[in-house]
Amino acid sequence: MTRPDTMKAVILPAPGRMAISTKPVPNPGPEEVLVQVAGCGICGTDIKIRDHGLPGQPPFGSFTPGHEYAGTVVAVGETVDEFAIGDRVVVEAHKGCGRCENCLGGMYTACLNYGNVDKGHRCNGITTDGGLATYAVNHVNTLYKIPENVSFDEAIMIMTAGSPLYGLENAGGYIVGETIAILGPGPIGLMAVQLCRAMGAGRIILTGTREGRLKLGRELGSDVTVNTREEDPVAAVLKATGGRGADMVIDCAGGDETFAQSLQMVKRGGKVVLVAFYKGPVTADISIAVRNNVTIYTERGEGGGSVGRALALLATGKIVAKPLVTHVFPLDEVHRAFEVFDKRIGDPIKVILRP
Amino acid sequence: MTRPDTMKAVILPAPGRMAISTKPVPNPGPEEVLVQVAGCGICGTDIKIRDHGLPGQPPFGSFTPGHEYAGTVVAVGETVDEFAIGDRVVVEAHKGCGRCENCLGGMYTACLNYGNVDKGHRCNGITTDGGLATYAVNHVNTLYKIPENVSFDEAIMIMTAGSPLYGLENAGGYIVGETIAILGPGPIGLMAVQLCRAMGAGRIILTGTREGRLKLGRELGSDVTVNTREEDPVAAVLKATGGRGADMVIDCAGGDETFAQSLQMVKRGGKVVLVAFYKGPVTADISIAVRNNVTIYTERGEGGGSVGRALALLATGKIVAKPLVTHVFPLDEVHRAFEVFDKRIGDPIKVILRP
Amino acid sequence: MTRPDTMKAVILPAPGRMAISTKPVPNPGPEEVLVQVAGCGICGTDIKIRDHGLPGQPPFGSFTPGHEYAGTVVAVGETVDEFAIGDRVVVEAHKGCGRCENCLGGMYTACLNYGNVDKGHRCNGITTDGGLATYAVNHVNTLYKIPENVSFDEAIMIMTAGSPLYGLENAGGYIVGETIAILGPGPIGLMAVQLCRAMGAGRIILTGTREGRLKLGRELGSDVTVNTREEDPVAAVLKATGGRGADMVIDCAGGDETFAQSLQMVKRGGKVVLVAFYKGPVTADISIAVRNNVTIYTERGEGGGSVGRALALLATGKIVAKPLVTHVFPLDEVHRAFEVFDKRIGDPIKVILRP
Amino acid sequence: MTRPDTMKAVILPAPGRMAISTKPVPNPGPEEVLVQVAGCGICGTDIKIRDHGLPGQPPFGSFTPGHEYAGTVVAVGETVDEFAIGDRVVVEAHKGCGRCENCLGGMYTACLNYGNVDKGHRCNGITTDGGLATYAVNHVNTLYKIPENVSFDEAIMIMTAGSPLYGLENAGGYIVGETIAILGPGPIGLMAVQLCRAMGAGRIILTGTREGRLKLGRELGSDVTVNTREEDPVAAVLKATGGRGADMVIDCAGGDETFAQSLQMVKRGGKVVLVAFYKGPVTADISIAVRNNVTIYTERGEGGGSVGRALALLATGKIVAKPLVTHVFPLDEVHRAFEVFDKRIGDPIKVILRP
Repeated sequence: MTRPDTMKAVILPAPGRMAISTKPVPNPGPEEVLVQVAGCGICGTDIKIRDHGLPGQPPFGSFTPGHEYAGTVVAVGETVDEFAIGDRVVVEAHKGCGRCENCLGGMYTACLNYGNVDKGHRCNGITTDGGLATYAVNHVNTLYKIPENVSFDEAIMIMTAGSPLYGLENAGGYIVGETIAILGPGPIGLMAVQLCRAMGAGRIILTGTREGRLKLGRELGSDVTVNTREEDPVAAVLKATGGRGADMVIDCAGGDETFAQSLQMVKRGGKVVLVAFYKGPVTADISIAVRNNVTIYTERGEGGGSVGRALALLATGKIVAKPLVTHVFPLDEVHRAFEVFDKRIGDPIKVILRP
Repeated sequence: MTRPDTMKAVILPAPGRMAISTKPVPNPGPEEVLVQVAGCGICGTDIKIRDHGLPGQPPFGSFTPGHEYAGTVVAVGETVDEFAIGDRVVVEAHKGCGRCENCLGGMYTACLNYGNVDKGHRCNGITTDGGLATYAVNHVNTLYKIPENVSFDEAIMIMTAGSPLYGLENAGGYIVGETIAILGPGPIGLMAVQLCRAMGAGRIILTGTREGRLKLGRELGSDVTVNTREEDPVAAVLKATGGRGADMVIDCAGGDETFAQSLQMVKRGGKVVLVAFYKGPVTADISIAVRNNVTIYTERGEGGGSVGRALALLATGKIVAKPLVTHVFPLDEVHRAFEVFDKRIGDPIKVILRP
Repeated sequence: MTRPDTMKAVILPAPGRMAISTKPVPNPGPEEVLVQVAGCGICGTDIKIRDHGLPGQPPFGSFTPGHEYAGTVVAVGETVDEFAIGDRVVVEAHKGCGRCENCLGGMYTACLNYGNVDKGHRCNGITTDGGLATYAVNHVNTLYKIPENVSFDEAIMIMTAGSPLYGLENAGGYIVGETIAILGPGPIGLMAVQLCRAMGAGRIILTGTREGRLKLGRELGSDVTVNTREEDPVAAVLKATGGRGADMVIDCAGGDETFAQSLQMVKRGGKVVLVAFYKGPVTADISIAVRNNVTIYTERGEGGGSVGRALALLATGKIVAKPLVTHVFPLDEVHRAFEVFDKRIGDPIKVILRP
Repeated sequence: MTRPDTMKAVILPAPGRMAISTKPVPNPGPEEVLVQVAGCGICGTDIKIRDHGLPGQPPFGSFTPGHEYAGTVVAVGETVDEFAIGDRVVVEAHKGCGRCENCLGGMYTACLNYGNVDKGHRCNGITTDGGLATYAVNHVNTLYKIPENVSFDEAIMIMTAGSPLYGLENAGGYIVGETIAILGPGPIGLMAVQLCRAMGAGRIILTGTREGRLKLGRELGSDVTVNTREEDPVAAVLKATGGRGADMVIDCAGGDETFAQSLQMVKRGGKVVLVAFYKGPVTADISIAVRNNVTIYTERGEGGGSVGRALALLATGKIVAKPLVTHVFPLDEVHRAFEVFDKRIGDPIKVILRP
């Protein structure tokens, strides 16, 4: 497979600005693979990356963002036998340093050398070049083969399932027959609905403000939906559970009050899982957690091999991805794609760019 | 609801013998419920109970076996508000003493006062009277409400799911995307296939000797089946996993060689779950487990609220029970029912008796 | 052993008031034991109980508080063989209902029937009569035998170790070689220092405002102490850990800022354990926990058999109790004892009343 | 620090043979460190390595064994800032590939690429050159700094604590107040006694055949010792625990009957930890584990950072190492040292060679 010397890539010349540029096609190192990108999704993090940068991010200039992509292997490094040319693959963002105690203990998304490229850490599209380009280089640890019956777009969408699935794994991963309250019907929340269903949850309650999203939530597996513009979510969850509270509450909303609400709607002895970032400090009666012996779990990225696990759920028909891919643009229309996503034009869930 | 003073009940007059007798209808204590039995399943344990008795079993005479039953609540004890007259319920066998350290720690099926009725332990149909009768008394801890869309027969069958589900819970309960090998396509093994599918397993390999059972296994969710009369199961699992072994092996067979095989077919760092009883001591190269850092989990009965959890899986359509209920007899034909089950006449999976 | 019909007991005639009264000596039920009280400690919760009452507390009037006591068994209920007359015992407060799903799952201190005496729940000294009296009745589940080499006062003090030990158990319980930051050198914090040392912690950092307490902390096992009046505790912990943060932070202070500080001083991928109640809602940048994959554990009371476990630590010399028992009063001086405790007269750590 | 081009090293010219040879001093790669060896212990595995080789071991010829060593850093690779020249360090054997799913999940000692040097795996002294030499090269992942108050010999000895400590971690790591039975008072068993004591075990029962070892066990923390030549170990443990069995049984003996005995002496609901290799297949009534809900844990090597954790226990005075270092020889006397160890001349526990 001949490949060109240069490629098209989105770059960030300055805070808040994006441009299409021409860059050299990178060469894979001994443990790396070169991927010809078929598509790259964007998410809220990309807006932050574009507008002010994240910790560990290279200086504005020629850096290429994009951390949700899939494509085809076109070259492999010298020690790589995990993948072969022609393999269809999807990425996860985080490659730990492999040498700090967190990486050695299996928590590679919480790598203590985050952003330290010299010591082996990479977070593609955040601390190293990502997938808003024709080609991207990946360490073997950040790639999963796409099952035959899964499309590139579905695989990109499923990458979004990695974070909530890792949160569920951190919280024990065993929810068979339990009642789960999920706050926020964004892409993560809607994936969480499906994941909980796929893992055997008994009943799923979804809360949010947009009726269209709640309707989609019902189609994807929610038993009860609560429009928080009409009903108090805490009261609604308590009512739906006979006053007892949900066995698990997953905060996918990250609102100013959702953490406090999570503590109020979870069962005594229950679990709260945080899979959202909050806009700033939040206030909550944390004594509720102590009094009720509630544990609060989190996740950082799609650790634990969660992208591969989520792909298996998709391949076996336990979850779906297509209804969540709402917009596709060519890479040249990257500005339009970001505008659509950022301004919620046409209620986008997942926006994908194709190089 | 008027209820009679006496009832029909199976009793065990002597080892190996059963009879239909008339006994007083029991009265529920303060924390108990009286159930009018709709049906009672039988399993291999009942054969042992009939033929020689189990530890803690009352003397042969008027004892009534039967630990897999469902029915309708017809009376409740004075402190009971968990159930109301008319509720359709299914049982679990074990009620711990509630005062030993295992019960206090949540392991009530491993109660240290097993068989000690004075201290509050009960195992219905094993150490106290069970459900092969028109009525049975149950502590509230041993009952689950049957969802509306679930029949009594299905609920009885689902009670069988409790043990393997508890085994899966003990083994961590998180198997999303993993490859599971299940040995033995009996009722437990076939339930394990469905449970693993319902919990998001990536691939399920089922081994056994009877082609009909393997076929049913494929219908219930196995991706690969191995007839061990034709293929070595260890070689087959290694082949199906690229030489790596299964992430988890569940031994539902309890054969002379299946424990040894489980160790040989599990992945380095994997898990073995034992949900069968073996006929006697078995021989295995246990160093394999040490060398490969394999953990061996077990289960004792349907602890962890597993019957309730399994009912939720049935009610939400994640597993099915009907195809496994193969034979139904009136209680009067209890001898015939046991013969059919014991001699495998007509390849029975679950045999149910109706009072 | 003859015992009188009546006894001396502290009662709460009205909010904020205490009196010494004469009450009938209670009779133990079938699963209960009568204890002749040797001593009863008081803690901050007792102040709340006296002044305004807690959820589930009986109406002001003849109710007797006191949940930290030890004594001698003088009578046993009919099914009791766990204890014999003459046994020296110490209590834990919580006896779960034994029939809700939390109790069945081993979380009896988070009983869903908390305060419901009819259904079997008791929290001695809080929802049922306690130990500020000559005699008290206890369910067998709330008693531990005191090892021979442990005095009553030590046993009472050790009861205080139950809560932080349960918090440590909930957080996994394995801290060998780890660096632990403990906030707040009160009785709980000082016990936490000792417990962490006894469980093999590598390094212990204690923060607080009172130099005397910090000095005692050093004597009990702290490697580093931080006076938060002189040093910022977050900066101090980061400095002491090379910028990395503590593996685990235990908040025993419950201050307005200590929860926020805990999140800032814990290692990426680390654990925060909350063993204090906060005065009201607190504000914190909870996104730190998400970004760093930090899990937040709690405890409710001394579950998990923690009092018995802590007694074993005392008996084997791994922790000490005597230095923490600072004041002893006869029961008749209960008003003075509460005043000393409440107003911190003479820097009390543990105040014990002897009937 | 000038260092020579060549060094003295033990090599294995042929099965069963050892020789002292001259080899080039190796150069550390980018993530590696060169260690000047201060001492290297030998264990039973070294006998197998010498006599017939282990899986993944290089061909007989110039291979240098030795996996228990300590020394001083004399050179560091280009990306190394974890260690500096002059640091005193001790090793662990296993460096995972960092790219298989087990390594990514934190189980690097169960690396799926064990023995595959090209893909990054190393097991020093087993699949790559080890420490029976003047110098050895180590990846940063296989080194721990030795605390100031710990000698090289102690550090080498403590390396032996890594395996049982990892077994304890795998089994949950929380044993406060529990009763632990330890089978086999070899170096591993004696370390297990100390570790259990250091982690807060309530009572420790040690079984073995040699009275001298049992005496040492008592000095190191065993409460009860059982000479299995005089007493049946199962009966003795049941007697010592009031018929209940030990909360945890650790098999450090690897005898023909010790696995079966472990199942018989463990409490219902208890844990068995296997930290020994057996000579061949063993026979046991594994149904006991199923009936009693017993979980069987293992360990492979000193994973989980256990060597570093054990060093912290030594530095804080929770365990001791000196009484276990029984023999020291110069490297030139390697034949004599192996003979002493292999033939148990003078009852050796740990034999150390000094280059």
